[in-house]
Amino acid sequence: MRLLRIGPPGGERPCAVGPGGVVRDLSSWVPDWTGAALDPDALQETAARLAREAAGLPEVDLAAGRVGPPVRPGGHLLSIGLNYRAHAAEAGLAVPGEPIVASKAPTTLVGPYDDLLLPPGGEKTDWEVELAVVIGRRAQYLPDPASALRHVAGYATGNDVSERSWLLERGGQWVKGKSFESFSPLGPYLVTPDEVGDPGRLRLTCRVNGRMMQGGSTADMVFDVSHLLWYLSQCMVLHPGDVVLTGTPGGVALGRPDQPYLRAGDVVEAEVSGLGAQRQRCRAVVLGDAGTAAPVLPAASARTRS
Amino acid sequence: MRLLRIGPPGGERPCAVGPGGVVRDLSSWVPDWTGAALDPDALQETAARLAREAAGLPEVDLAAGRVGPPVRPGGHLLSIGLNYRAHAAEAGLAVPGEPIVASKAPTTLVGPYDDLLLPPGGEKTDWEVELAVVIGRRAQYLPDPASALRHVAGYATGNDVSERSWLLERGGQWVKGKSFESFSPLGPYLVTPDEVGDPGRLRLTCRVNGRMMQGGSTADMVFDVSHLLWYLSQCMVLHPGDVVLTGTPGGVALGRPDQPYLRAGDVVEAEVSGLGAQRQRCRAVVLGDAGTAAPVLPAASARTRS
Repeated sequence: MRLLRIGPPGGERPCAVGPGGVVRDLSSWVPDWTGAALDPDALQETAARLAREAAGLPEVDLAAGRVGPPVRPGGHLLSIGLNYRAHAAEAGLAVPGEPIVASKAPTTLVGPYDDLLLPPGGEKTDWEVELAVVIGRRAQYLPDPASALRHVAGYATGNDVSERSWLLERGGQWVKGKSFESFSPLGPYLVTPDEVGDPGRLRLTCRVNGRMMQGGSTADMVFDVSHLLWYLSQCMVLHPGDVVLTGTPGGVALGRPDQPYLRAGDVVEAEVSGLGAQRQRCRAVVLGDAGTAAPVLPAASARTRS
Repeated sequence: MRLLRIGPPGGERPCAVGPGGVVRDLSSWVPDWTGAALDPDALQETAARLAREAAGLPEVDLAAGRVGPPVRPGGHLLSIGLNYRAHAAEAGLAVPGEPIVASKAPTTLVGPYDDLLLPPGGEKTDWEVELAVVIGRRAQYLPDPASALRHVAGYATGNDVSERSWLLERGGQWVKGKSFESFSPLGPYLVTPDEVGDPGRLRLTCRVNGRMMQGGSTADMVFDVSHLLWYLSQCMVLHPGDVVLTGTPGGVALGRPDQPYLRAGDVVEAEVSGLGAQRQRCRAVVLGDAGTAAPVLPAASARTRS
C-alpha cells in the first residue's frame, strides 16, 4: 500500500493509492497516518479493506492539492551520519565503527514538493537523498537485528537537507545544521514493506538543476536498516511515527571540488527506487524590516502548527 | 500560575494551583498543556479566570495521583551543553564560544517522581539538574535576545539525565546518551514568568542519597536564557511545547574523582528555587528472557503512547 497525506500544511488528510491507481481519502477510517494507524497489522487490514471498499471513499485529485509528508510530524526525527563509505570519504571523516546518530527538529518534516527555504546568511545548504524508515510498532531493546523489520510501517524517499556552516563551523552538535524550517522533505509516499521488498536493494539518486549529483544503492550502507533499528532500540524507545533517515551516499556539495551549495532558484530532485520522486525549488528566506521577527515565507511552506 | 499534569502516563489531565493552594482540574477549559494553551496571553487569561472561577472546578488530591511532566511530550526537546564554566571544566572541555545544542528523544519527558530507569549494561548514568524553559509562542529569527522572553510559557525544574558511556564512548552525537526511557524528569510545576521573575537569579541544587552533589546559580550561565532562545531561533523554529534544558552546573558524577554514577536504589533530588523539587528512585531495567524484546518496567513508568 502507498500512503499519502494531502492538504495544506497542518491540515493534511490521510490518503492511500487504491485499485486502479486512484488516490482515496481515508480520513473516515483513520484519524491520520500516525500512532496506532501505522501499526503493521493495522496497515495490512487497511490495505485489505481498501481493496474491497475503495469505491465508497472520496477520490482525491492529486493535481489539485498539496502533497504533505506521508506521516504526521511530531515523532522523533533521526538522521544517521556517515552511513555510506563514499560520503564518509568526501566529508573527510572515518567510516564509523558503530552508527552515528543525529537528530532534526520534528517540525522540519514537509511535503516532497514544498519549497526548500535557504536560511538568511546560510551559504552552505546541501542536499542528501536518503532512504527514510517510518516506525510502525514500539521497539525497545530488540534482541537482534533480525527482529527489527517487524517494527517498520514503511519506507519513503527523504532529503536530509543540511546547512554545513551551522553543522560544522558553529560548535557542538549537528542538530543545529539540520533543523532549519523545511529541511526534511519526505515522500510523496509511505510505501509498506510488502511493496518494497528488501530495503537493502534500493537505488538512490539526486539531481540538482537536472545534473546527476548523487547515485548510489542502499546495498552500500555501512549499517543496514535492520542493524540501525536494532542499534537505536538499545539507547532509546522507537515509537510509531518516528522517522529514521538512514544516511546519504556520496555526491553532496560538501564533497565536490567547487562545493556548489544550493542557491535560490535551484531545483533538487531526489528519488529512491519504488518510493517516488521529490522535487524542491530553493527559495531564499527574506527577513522583514528590522524588529520584525517573522520571515516572509512562501504560503505553501508556512507552518500552521499550534 | 503553577501548572501541573496529573494522571497515569499518557493520560494526564491539565491542572493548576488555584486560590488557597488548591490544585484544580482544568480539563474542562483546555485540552492539555500543549499548543495554543501555552500561549503567554492565553495563560494570563487562564490565570485571571482561575482566580475568579476556581470554585467551579474539580479539586485534585495530589497525594492520590501521579504527577506527570507539566507539559505534554511531543515537542522538540533540546539540551544545551557546557553552559556553566564549572561543568565545562569538570568535563575537561573548553567553555564554548557559542551555545552547544543537543537533543533528546521527546518521549523521554516523564514526571518528577517517576522512577529513573538505569539502562541494562549502562554503568555511567549521571544526574544534571537544569532550569527548563518551555516555549509558549512560535519563535523564528528573533531580531535580538531582548525580545526572546516574550516567547516563554514558563519555567520548570529539569533533570537532564545522561548515560556517559553512550554519550562519550560510542561515537557520534550526544543524542544517544540522552534518549533512554525516563531520562528527562520535568516538573512538578510549569511556573509562568510573572511568578519567576528574573530567570538569571535562580538557585539549582541536586542531592543524591541526601548528599549535596550540585549547587549553582543560573547567574553563572555562559549564555543566559534570552541569548539561548534568540540563538536557537536562528537555526530552527521554536514551537509552543518545545522544551529547552539550559545546561547544568558543576558537580555531576563524571567530574568527581570517584565518578559515583547512579546505581539501583539511589535517590536523586533536583530542585530549582521557586520551581519545586523532584525526587527519582533509580531502578535497573531487567530484560526479559532471551527473545523477549520488552523490558520489565515499573508500572508507573510504562509508556502508553501510541
